[in-house]
Formats: sequence, structure tokens, C-alpha cells
Amino acid sequence: MEQTDVANETEAEDALLEVLNSNNAVLHQYTKSNGHPRFVNVLAKLYSKLLNRDVNPQSEILSTLGASEALFCAITGLIDVGDEVIIIEPYFDVYVPLIKISGGTPRFIALKPKLNESELGSSADWVFDSKELEGLFTEKTRAIILNTPNNPLGKVFDLSELTLIANLCKKMECFLELEHFLASLPGMWERTVTIGSAGKTFCATGWKVGWVYGSAQLLRGLQIVHQYAVFTGSTPLEEAIAIVFEKELSRLGQDESYFVTLEKELKSKRDYIVKKLLEAHMKPTIPDGGFFYYLHSESDEYKDFQFTKWLTKNVGLQGVPPTVFYTDKNKQLFENYVRFCFIKKQETLEKAAQTLNKFNASHIEM
Amino acid sequence: MEQTDVANETEAEDALLEVLNSNNAVLHQYTKSNGHPRFVNVLAKLYSKLLNRDVNPQSEILSTLGASEALFCAITGLIDVGDEVIIIEPYFDVYVPLIKISGGTPRFIALKPKLNESELGSSADWVFDSKELEGLFTEKTRAIILNTPNNPLGKVFDLSELTLIANLCKKMECFLELEHFLASLPGMWERTVTIGSAGKTFCATGWKVGWVYGSAQLLRGLQIVHQYAVFTGSTPLEEAIAIVFEKELSRLGQDESYFVTLEKELKSKRDYIVKKLLEAHMKPTIPDGGFFYYLHSESDEYKDFQFTKWLTKNVGLQGVPPTVFYTDKNKQLFENYVRFCFIKKQETLEKAAQTLNKFNASHIEM
Repeated sequence: MEQTDVANETEAEDALLEVLNSNNAVLHQYTKSNGHPRFVNVLAKLYSKLLNRDVNPQSEILSTLGASEALFCAITGLIDVGDEVIIIEPYFDVYVPLIKISGGTPRFIALKPKLNESELGSSADWVFDSKELEGLFTEKTRAIILNTPNNPLGKVFDLSELTLIANLCKKMECFLELEHFLASLPGMWERTVTIGSAGKTFCATGWKVGWVYGSAQLLRGLQIVHQYAVFTGSTPLEEAIAIVFEKELSRLGQDESYFVTLEKELKSKRDYIVKKLLEAHMKPTIPDGGFFYYLHSESDEYKDFQFTKWLTKNVGLQGVPPTVFYTDKNKQLFENYVRFCFIKKQETLEKAAQTLNKFNASHIEM
Repeated sequence: MEQTDVANETEAEDALLEVLNSNNAVLHQYTKSNGHPRFVNVLAKLYSKLLNRDVNPQSEILSTLGASEALFCAITGLIDVGDEVIIIEPYFDVYVPLIKISGGTPRFIALKPKLNESELGSSADWVFDSKELEGLFTEKTRAIILNTPNNPLGKVFDLSELTLIANLCKKMECFLELEHFLASLPGMWERTVTIGSAGKTFCATGWKVGWVYGSAQLLRGLQIVHQYAVFTGSTPLEEAIAIVFEKELSRLGQDESYFVTLEKELKSKRDYIVKKLLEAHMKPTIPDGGFFYYLHSESDEYKDFQFTKWLTKNVGLQGVPPTVFYTDKNKQLFENYVRFCFIKKQETLEKAAQTLNKFNASHIEM
């Protein structure tokens, strides 16, 4: 879980200030268990537009205390004893314990780079083997967890990959959960639970405001877990995020849309840091989505954990060792990489660039 | 779960305004899983004082998303398959499903009024039978859930009742969870998990800021559930509640202490509404704690659910039918009561009094 840090984060803070200044006592009291009405209403409007279908704010949206709680409700609410769940590596470490406490079994498939390590590539070059994936689907398969843009890789699954996965799901009568847009493919609304969060969307990870959308039938299981685990979300924070979304809804697709400006800002940050990394003779995997990048580290002696510790201590750059996102079987394939987060203020990126300048990978003496 | 509404609620709102005006971006990003440092630090200081022992902010405090999540973590984190859990009726309905999904079995004992129904009494007159309680403890007993002040009754368990319960727990090697002060009895710190919430303490139920304290060994189970269920709490809201607690800590025991003024305010509200109820020829059970009261309704024809529905529709007063807080076996003992909430603005209470004035229980014609 990463700290994020961009200029736009004040959108949410300004909205919360508006909530406080309204002096409306009701906004500090319990709201409904499935979500604060203003919040689920605007989410339903937004997704009705994006998915081109009528999304019901009561039964097809559930507000949660961040994406973490959404994941918890989705996995424990839908996975039963004996179910199998397919996970694509690299993956978020919390999936496995959640599947196991539900009585399910995780099955893994790894994304692997098409290029060899000496070439420079983007996260789109990291792919799964479609035959291997097909072989994982059995009559016990209940779900596949698809994280797109993949964290930590930044891979955005393309339409052909999504269609292949969707067809396997339809054939096997299982469901999917993911972060983006698969619910809009034919026949997939009924079998997709999609998770979003204000933390990642509005760079306010500490607010713990998230949501889930999907068919009423699938969401029922999540609503029950949510009700017993936390009962309801935070009224003032959901009201504030509702205000931000209402503003966003009115300017959707226009230049001043936050989604448009965020994308531009992230792209510019990404391109800046990629340039600096290349100047320091390092090989980044250029992410197509998200705000992390993989850096290929050449040293054989300082792998992964050792390398990130060494980097923090001697160079002053903090990265995440990517093997934490892989199963034991596949760890050795990925220990030559480091994950960094680039959703930072420009001045922070410039400091990182200066540090990189001193640390020139072609002259490492460790 | 009730809406609350008093003047002092602005303490928390003012603190949140302070957080927003500090323009500190870090306060909108993830905080630590066991709780925001400033928040758990002040809670540790407060409870160190109140309990007269050194409470460790890292290992003996856990911040949660409201008391609901605290309960969820406590029950699912500590109860295992085959365990028995003793529940005192009336009880909060969520206990039973949480015990059952943990594989445990609830065992019930009801508080019953010492007085007969024609007498006017306080919630202290509602007692459990000590022999009956002793009989419920077996070698399978893992916990007793004690809610004090009891919601909905308002009963504050007295020292002799708490000592009796503590001795049974020590004999049976089981633990307890509750809201107040039993942890300070000899030998009880090791076996008590205590839950608090800003919702009930600062009348901001919609903030979903809660906490748990107890021995590090017991809390470990809760921390694991918390980490996987929600990962962490809300940074800005925990920071705001920390500010309120810091203020409170500096004026603890003094007249301007919020705890002192809240108690006074609640007592005055309680006494006001009790007077008005008596004037309308109704028989309240005067609560010794909390902010609910029981009203004895005389009509045999309109019991409990029917009566509260009738009240809402015809009199304009909204109550909660208390049989929801009892098991089937004991429902019939309590269907002649209604629960009301009196933590309301004075103007709201006056409106209620006017309504009561029109609705005179000695002249009901339904």
C-alpha cells in the first residue's frame, strides 16, 4: 500500500471542507449500510454512463471502507469451501489468506516478459500463456482475480486478453473481480464484481473510501459481510467524495475532467522518471497504467530484498522488492527487479533524479 | 444503531477542520494498520491514567472502523470452533451471527426486572440470576460479552456484579469483552478486551472511528483480522479524534472536561424526558447510563412491534421494539416495553414532550 502525492488531491480535501462548513449535523451520523445515499447515487450515475447500462444505486453499488474492505467482502462473501480461485502473478499479497479463510484454494499463473532482459519494454510485454490459463480452469473454479492496471506491474490487460478470460469464465460458470471495465463485455455483468477506491482515484489513500459494483445477485453476499464486519462507511468522507464525483460527472470527457488531467499528470511524471532512469543506465519496465514502475537491477549479488535494502541505505531511494508479489515457485524469475512509485510531487521526482544521477548503474561498485 | 444529536458534537468537527486547515498532505494518506500514531498514543495515555497501568500504544491499542469492526475483530479473532460465548439479554443483535460464523455457540442469560410492572424503577433493578450465570460456565466457555452501560437498557453493571463475573472468568480461564472498566479489576487485564468508539463518545456515529484495548496477547488475534478486513483506519478522522482526546486529557476530571459536561447534559435530558413521560402517565425505566430508556407500554393489544408502528404513525414518536434484543425464549417477557433515544437537542426533546402531552397514556383509545 503506497503513499500517493499529487497536486489534485486537494479536490477531495476541498469537498470535505464544504461538508464541514455546511454545519449539517446529519452528515456526522450513521448513514445506510449499503452506502451514503448521495455517494451511491452519483456512483450509479457515473457507472451507468461508463458501462452504458442502468446501474441501480441500492442493489448494484456497495460503498466500502477502502478497496481493502471491498476485497475482503468480495472474497469471503463469494468464495466457499472447496472453491478454486485463479490469481495472476504478480498479485496483491492479501488475496491468498482471504481465499484460505473462506475455505478456497488459490491457483496461480504468472505474467512473464516476452522480451529478454537486455531489451527495454513496457508492461504490455508481460503476458500470460493462454493454454496455461485454460488448463487452470476446472469445474471447481469459482473466480479469477484480475487486477488491471496490475499492481505492481502497471500492465493494462488488453481487449483480446480480457475476451479470452471472459470466454473461459462463461464456459466455466465462474465469476470475476477486477478494477476496470470487463463488466461491460457481453454476458459479463452478471459475473463481474468491480472494485474502486477514492484512495487510488483521488490520491487520498488515508480516507478509506471504496466501493464495489456488480449485479444485485453477486453483491448480496458482499452486503451481508459488510453489514457484519463494519456495518456502514464514514458519512462525511462519503459525502465529500460524492461531491467530487458529482463535479467530475458534469465535466466527464472534457479537458478539465480530473480523470483527464490525472492521466496527463501521471504520463508526464512517468516519462520524466523513465528518462532519468535511462540516463542513469537503468532499465525500467514502462507501465501502461497505474503509478508504479519496475526497474531491472543488474547486480547478481544484491537481489530483490538485499538490493532494495542496499538502495535505501546507500543511495537514498526506497523501492519494494517485487518477489513479495509472487509465489515461491516464481520468485526467482523476478528477483532482478525493483518496484518504485512515481505518483509524487515534481520536486520529489527531481530529488530522485539527482540521486539517480549520482547512482549510475553502469558504474556500480558494491 | 442510533442517530445522536447534542451540542458537543462540534468538538470533533472543529478538530477535523483543524486537520484540513493544516494542509498536511500526509494526513490524507495511509496510516499504520494498528492505528494512526497520534491517535493510539493519546488513547494509551488516557487509558494508562484511567486504568492506572502502563498501556502500550503499539501492542495494547488497536484503532478500528467503529465499534462494529472492533466487535467483528474481537469475536472472529478470538472465538474458535466449539467455543461457547455467554451473552446477557437484552443484547446487540450482531453478536450471534459473528459467534456462529466463528464456529462458536451463544449461551444466553436474561436481565429481568426485580420490581413488578406496576412499580417505577431504574435500569439497576434489572438483574441476572447469579446461580443461573454460574451454571452457564462450562469448560467450553471462551468468553462472556458484557455491554455496560447495557444497550438498550442503560444498566450500568455494579462492582459486585462485575466481581462475580470476573471470578467466574478467572475460574474458567475464559476472557471477557465489554465497554468499561472491568479490565482494571485484579487479574482481569490479561483476559479483557474493551471496545470504545468516537461515535458514542463524541456523538459522531457516522465517523466510524473506534478502538479496542487489552493485553498484547489477546489483541494479536484482533490485529490480524483487522489487517485483512480493512487494513487500516481513516487517517484524517483518527487525527481529529486524537486532537479531541488530547484536549480532554489535559482537562480530565475538571469541570470543563467533555466527559463531565456530557454526563451533566445527558442527565438533564434524561430527567427532562422522564418528567414529561410521567406527566403523560407512562412508566419509564430510568437508565443509569447510556442514552436510551425503556418505556413500559400498557396496551395488551399493541405489543412491541405493533405498538412502535402505531406510535410512529399516530403519535409521531419513533421507538425501537425491544424484543429484537432478546432470544425467542425471552421475547414475551419484554414485549410490553419500547426503547427511545434521548440524546437529542433540547428543542427536539421539547417537541417530543408536546407530542407526549397530546398522547396521554391514561386515555389511550386505539
